[in-house]
This record gives sequence, C-alpha cells and structure tokens, in this order.
Amino acid sequence: MAELAGILRTELVRYSPDEKLPSSRALVERFRVSPVTVSRALAALAAEGLVVTRPGAGAFRARPRAGGARPGDTSWQQVALSAEAGEDAVPRSVDASGVLATLSEPPAGVLELNGGYLHPALQPERALAAALARAGRRPGAWGRPPVEGVGELRAWFAREIGGPAGTVTPSDVLITAGGQSALTAALRALAPPGAPVLVESPTYPGMLAAARASGLRPVPVPADAHGVRTDLLAPAFRASGARLLVLQPLFQNPSGAVLAEERRAEVLRAAREAGAFVVEDDFARRLAHEDAPPLPPALAADDPDGIVVHVCSLTKFTSPSLRVGALAARGPALDRLRAIHVVDNFFVPRPLQEAALELVGSPAWSRHRRTVAAELRARREALLSALRRELPQLTVEYVPPGGFHVWVRLPDGTDDTALAAAAFREGVAVAPGRPYYAAEPEAPHLRLSFASVAGTAELAEGVARLRRAVGQIAPAG
Amino acid sequence: MAELAGILRTELVRYSPDEKLPSSRALVERFRVSPVTVSRALAALAAEGLVVTRPGAGAFRARPRAGGARPGDTSWQQVALSAEAGEDAVPRSVDASGVLATLSEPPAGVLELNGGYLHPALQPERALAAALARAGRRPGAWGRPPVEGVGELRAWFAREIGGPAGTVTPSDVLITAGGQSALTAALRALAPPGAPVLVESPTYPGMLAAARASGLRPVPVPADAHGVRTDLLAPAFRASGARLLVLQPLFQNPSGAVLAEERRAEVLRAAREAGAFVVEDDFARRLAHEDAPPLPPALAADDPDGIVVHVCSLTKFTSPSLRVGALAARGPALDRLRAIHVVDNFFVPRPLQEAALELVGSPAWSRHRRTVAAELRARREALLSALRRELPQLTVEYVPPGGFHVWVRLPDGTDDTALAAAAFREGVAVAPGRPYYAAEPEAPHLRLSFASVAGTAELAEGVARLRRAVGQIAPAG
Repeated sequence: MAELAGILRTELVRYSPDEKLPSSRALVERFRVSPVTVSRALAALAAEGLVVTRPGAGAFRARPRAGGARPGDTSWQQVALSAEAGEDAVPRSVDASGVLATLSEPPAGVLELNGGYLHPALQPERALAAALARAGRRPGAWGRPPVEGVGELRAWFAREIGGPAGTVTPSDVLITAGGQSALTAALRALAPPGAPVLVESPTYPGMLAAARASGLRPVPVPADAHGVRTDLLAPAFRASGARLLVLQPLFQNPSGAVLAEERRAEVLRAAREAGAFVVEDDFARRLAHEDAPPLPPALAADDPDGIVVHVCSLTKFTSPSLRVGALAARGPALDRLRAIHVVDNFFVPRPLQEAALELVGSPAWSRHRRTVAAELRARREALLSALRRELPQLTVEYVPPGGFHVWVRLPDGTDDTALAAAAFREGVAVAPGRPYYAAEPEAPHLRLSFASVAGTAELAEGVARLRRAVGQIAPAG
Repeated sequence: MAELAGILRTELVRYSPDEKLPSSRALVERFRVSPVTVSRALAALAAEGLVVTRPGAGAFRARPRAGGARPGDTSWQQVALSAEAGEDAVPRSVDASGVLATLSEPPAGVLELNGGYLHPALQPERALAAALARAGRRPGAWGRPPVEGVGELRAWFAREIGGPAGTVTPSDVLITAGGQSALTAALRALAPPGAPVLVESPTYPGMLAAARASGLRPVPVPADAHGVRTDLLAPAFRASGARLLVLQPLFQNPSGAVLAEERRAEVLRAAREAGAFVVEDDFARRLAHEDAPPLPPALAADDPDGIVVHVCSLTKFTSPSLRVGALAARGPALDRLRAIHVVDNFFVPRPLQEAALELVGSPAWSRHRRTVAAELRARREALLSALRRELPQLTVEYVPPGGFHVWVRLPDGTDDTALAAAAFREGVAVAPGRPYYAAEPEAPHLRLSFASVAGTAELAEGVARLRRAVGQIAPAG
C-alpha cells in the first residue's frame, strides 16, 4: 500500500488542481493490486491533503489552500441530510450505485459485458447526425413545444403502442425525456411515499432505485421463464396492499423472458381485482432478435379501463443521448402523470423531439431495425456458445429472443459480487445478480450483455477472461 | 349555453376523432361569452358522447365507439389514486396549474403579458441553429456523456458561478435538464417528505409546486424591495424547524428585487445557525437590464462550507428548448444531488450539451447579452410609462433592474383572479398574484411580463386592454 501511495504521490504533480485521477478500477488494472489496496493508498493521500475523494465520483487532486482562504468544513451537512420530518417519515433513500455501474464506461482494456446500450458501432450514428441537422432546419425547432410533446411525435408513439387498431390515441401519450424519466414520473404519480409496489424478482435495479427514491417499498414477486408468476400475484396484492405493479412483459431485464400469453390476462385480472395500476415497462420492443417469434401487442393496446400505464423509449434502440420516450395512460392517471411531468421537467427539448421524428420517418429506421435484429441474434449465439465451451458449469436457463443480456446461474454458494470483482481484475466487466433482487436472491447469478462490445471476438475473449475469474473463486461450503 | 352547444355540435363534424378543440380561452374570446358558459356547453357535448374533456389538456372530439368495443371505465382510478400509505403519510399533491399557465401559449389575438420566456424575436435563433448544426458534427456528439455532464461545460458553469476567484470547481457542478429539473432535484435531495422549507413570500409558483410534489411544506418568509426579510429568518427557522431555504437573490420572481448587500451575510449566518441549506435559484443573472448596477456575485461563490446549493440555467436567456442548467454544491450534498439526478434522469442528452458549449463560445453570446440588456430595459420603461399613464391607481413599488416582470399592487380589496379573467376576456393575459404566495397574500397583485410580446407597441396595447378590465372590476367593500 505504502508503495502504491508513493508512486501516486510522485505522479500527482502531473495533475492540475481538481483534475480527476484515474478511477480505482483503472488503478487496480494498472498496478495489479486489490481494490482495498487502492482505496487505502488514496485514503492516505487524502489524509495528507493531496487528493480529495468523492464517493461515486472518484479522486481528484486537491487544490492548494490559498494563504488567506479558510478551508471549508461541510461536516454539518451530515446532520442536515439525516434529518427526518418525524418518527414516521419515509427516509429519502437514494442509491444510484446500480445505475451508475451500467452508465459509466469501464477503463480502457476492460471488455464491457455490463452495458445497457448498443455499442457505438451498432448505433445509427450517421442517421442520427442527419436527423439532428434536419431538425435544426425545421422552422420553430427551438420554440416551446406543447408540454405533452410535439403532436406528430405523440401520434407516432400512439400508433406504435396501440397497433393498427388505433386503441391508443395521441391524446393518451406524453413525451418524456427517455424511459428512466418516464418510470420515475409513473412511480411518483401513481403511489404515495411509503406505499408498497409489486416488482418482478429479479428486475431492473434502475427501477428499484427510482421506486426507493420516491419513498416506495418494492415487494418482490417471483418470475420464471414465462414472466411474472401470476399464481403468486393475487396473494401478493392482498398481503402487501399494493396498488401498483411494475413489469417488463417483453424481453425482461435481466432474464429476457416474455410474459406468456395466458399470463397476460391474469396480470390484468389480478390488478383489476386489487384496484391497482400496472406499469408496463416496454423498453425492449425494438430489440427483438432475428429469430424471435411474432411479438405480442403491448398490454396497453387492449386496456379500455386505464389499468396499464405504458412506458417506452427510443434510447435502447438508437443512442443513449436520444433521450426521448413516452408514457401512455387513460383517465385521471394521465392527468396526474402530466402534472408530475410538467412540475419536474416542464417539457422535452423541441430539437430532440424533432430529431426523433426525422429519424423514425427516415428509410434508415427500418434498415436499422433489421441490422439490430441480426446483430443481436449473432452476438447472443456467440456468447452462448462461448459459455457452453468455456464454462459448462454455469447454467443458462433461458435463451432470450430479444434484448441485450443473458442471465447466467452460478453454482450454488458462489459469491456473485466477488466473482464480478475477480472478473473485473481479469479485464471483463459483468453485472453481479444481487442488485436485481428487491430482497434475498433465490440463487447467485451474473448478467452478461452481448450488445455493448465491438463484436463477437470480444465476446469470446470476455468469456475466456470470465473463466479465469471463475477459477479463482471457489464456491463456499 | 344551448346556443353555443348547438354551434359547436355543428362544427364538430370538421374535426377528426381525437382532434383537439379550440381552448376554452379561445372559445371565450371568439364567442364573447363567459368561461362558465363555455364549460357548460362542453359538458353538455361530453354528456352526449361527442367530446371528451381532459382537465388541463382541453376538449377533444370523441372517437366513435366501434360496434364490438366495450367503452372504457376509468372511474376505479379515483380510488387507487387517493390511496395513502398510512394515516401519517404525506399526500402526493401535484398542482401544475401555476406552471401550465405560463407554459401554454395564449390563443391568437391575446397579448402575452404572462410569459416566462423571451419572445421568439428576442431569442438568438440563428445562433442556436448554428450551434446545433456544429454540435451534430462534433465527434461522438450522440455518445453517452458522463452522468455529471460534459467536462468542458461543467468547467464553463464553474467559472460563471464562482467568478474569477475560481471558488467553484468543475467537480462541484452537475449539468441538469434546465432550471426546473435542478430545483426539483435539490428539493428532493435536501429534505425528506413532510419536511418544512422556507420560501420567500411572494415567490415563483413553479418552485412551490415542485416543493409540494416532493411532499415538502412551504413556509413563507416575507420579502421586500431588498429581498427576503432577514430579521424574520432566524425566527422562521426556529419556529418551523426547517433545514432548507429557497431564494432568488437576484431579480426575484415576481418582485424583481435584489437581495441587499447587508442581508447576504445575514442569510448565510441564519442558515448556518439553523444547520440548514440555502438553495440559491440564480435564474436571472443574464437578464440584467442595461441600466442595472454591477451585479453581486453568486452566494455560492463565497461558501467554503457548502451551505449554498446553486441552481442556474441557460433557458431564460436563450430559448425554452435549450434545457441545459446546472447545480453546484459541495460535500455530501453534492453526492446526494448526483444520486437523485442519475436515478431520475440518467443524464442530459449530449447533443444539447454540445450545442450549449458551441453557443456560449460563439461571438453571438456576448452580442446577445447586450441586445437582451437593452431590449429588456426599453420594454420595462415602456410598460411602466403605459401603466403610469393609463392606470395611475395601480402601484409599482419597485422598478426591477433585471428580469422579465413588474409586480403591480392593486387597490386593497381587488379580486386579482377576477381581474386576470376580465383582462383575458379583453385580450391580454396577465398573472394574478395569488399563486405566488405559499399562504395568504398580504395584498392583491398582478405580475406583468414585458419580455414575451413582440415589442413595445404590444405593451401599450396590453395596458390599454388591462385598463378596460380594471374598469369592469370594482374593489370589494
């Protein structure tokens, strides 16, 4: 540790004040030491006043204190931030770590099998640039859009969600700043702080974080290869008193499962009996693989009574920066959603909405769809065959017909967090299964993404590195 | 009423299903009837199944029901949406009406003296289009930015906020999707649901709505022409137990007041004693009028202990769709803000951040600043002289040296809401003072905006119309 601190102390002179140091991950990589050694070395330098560390942001070269300037003391904030309104108050628990893990780029040399977006080479970059240029030339492109969104774009989303029957109308749709914003608005609008919300188990950690940040209490309902276990749904509504269920019926994250035909009606029936809303997070409809069976319609497409609140987004299929999504709902819920959306954000910037319209109306749109479908299938197969070859002791219970991930079961007793850390040291970023569970996991898992590396060669190499990590981790007991 | 319903019934055939009807305001305008008559006529048509009304969104032509389709029934939602988590739970109260009033365009023919943005003719439209085009050509423009924002833009905001002394560093700054998003994140991050928050009285209704939507309880502290009354601040902290104060030290909305030099230190001292944060909503720094005295620095520029959380945005000075703003903070508060920001929104679209960078780095930026300073001063003077000439019975207690509005005191006993409605019927949109108060107003007021009409002629005509409305409204008793 002292040796590492010494090296870093020497290197620090090359950094300007407030410049960010390499991430802990990068230091682990470069010096082939454990994360604990890195954090101790950084703590030593921080104690010397040479670096400043910010949890979640990294370490920075400290500013030299000017002669007269009084050094700041923010320690009073700990008291202020832990103050609660009363004994029964709901703490504002915000844990962004699960989200940050997939949003931050791994250091150079580490293969990204933990990504939530298409690799840049798979993004329609040229079509996006052209769409933005055309959007900028549209008259009034910088003007104030209606708070609900540009009419033409609402109409496009309504057709996409409702299908040819036209069961979703443009006035049912709100344009949002991507799917995460839409989810946050839905969770905030549909349940008061302190309320329970039923979630699939396992499920997307970003949704769990958003629910908890809104003061909601996620209650897990087990899911299998056919989607959420509907036999457990009615009892879960009764036991929890929840009036809200969040699910991803299509290519669920992390499992890739599709909600089975017979369960679709059961979900709606259980919600209707409980007087509850169903938030349908339809994030992956455009991520069907080439060999996927025909897709079921959105739950929202056959929902006259406004049970379903539909969430979708263009981001996953295009670029993380095309933060344009939609909410669709009916009745007073729509009014509530609009109010939350307006108070939180006003509206989505018009140039982005216009760029989205240009993109979905261009010939590149359906071409991109075919490319993505073929590429995702090829990558999924490459990953699965590498896993079968190199790591036969891991179980892939389900071959996902869409989405970006396979969900891999580890031998009982494996510490998934330790394995992910070991894999990182070997040069491959993977997601441990733990954060996907609202309560205790039923078994250890990893989530492996095949969408965010450059190609199939990287998938094979990533699995080889994962195999080396598995060799270092012995299952407990 | 029956006559209006009859006319509308005939006109409805020209609308396609789900098409929006003219707004109630437009119908009031066009048929010279009262808002009550319009809403009764629409209710009659809704009862006949010809139109569908959505509170806040307007009236739409109903879809003809298909033979087999069951009409939907969303009435169960009223029960679901009123469910609270427990007796002590904080209701999720979301009132977007104050925000929607200034965000929606008035109908044609109505002069906009209730706007929160520059008139399109005052927006730097050509520079914005050029900035977007250049942004689109930047390499990686559509890529994933760091969740905290693009480094170069964080550095620019840090210099703007901290001034030449460099007291705010790029790592203190988070890029947000405009000022409202930043305010929402600050309110959500810094106080738990149910907690009190001290606010100026009067203050910006969009902030009151965001505070209430986050479950906070606004506690008003009177403000005068020198900003918030610091003699009342320490007692307010003690009586309420608040650990959060929100204020606009520069060109406050609605009064235009600048926090006086001697009060600046008192605000920080009172907050320090209470162990409280100060959210500094510095929305109007770039809206100084040509004749404004030198601007005081941001409170955040001299705040080593992280008391101040600074909020600012480019929107007011440029275009409502350049939704790029910043939060600046220190210590654990910054970590909390980052977590809320990431969980709610992930990040701000990169093309918008790049366009903002292009714009602030272009020669158009300082040119635009001079234009805005001169135009706002000329418009303010035109409005004030029209008011003196036409409406000497109204009192302008303070001539604002910056911002978009004058705050006009009405004779005691005037019903400001009724006056605003009468003004609307006369063809001028103004903001009644009531929504600017967290509790009872100390006197009736109107807020008049001089930034969002085409020019000074419209201001004179707007005041003439307002005079006709005043003539119709007799002060009570």
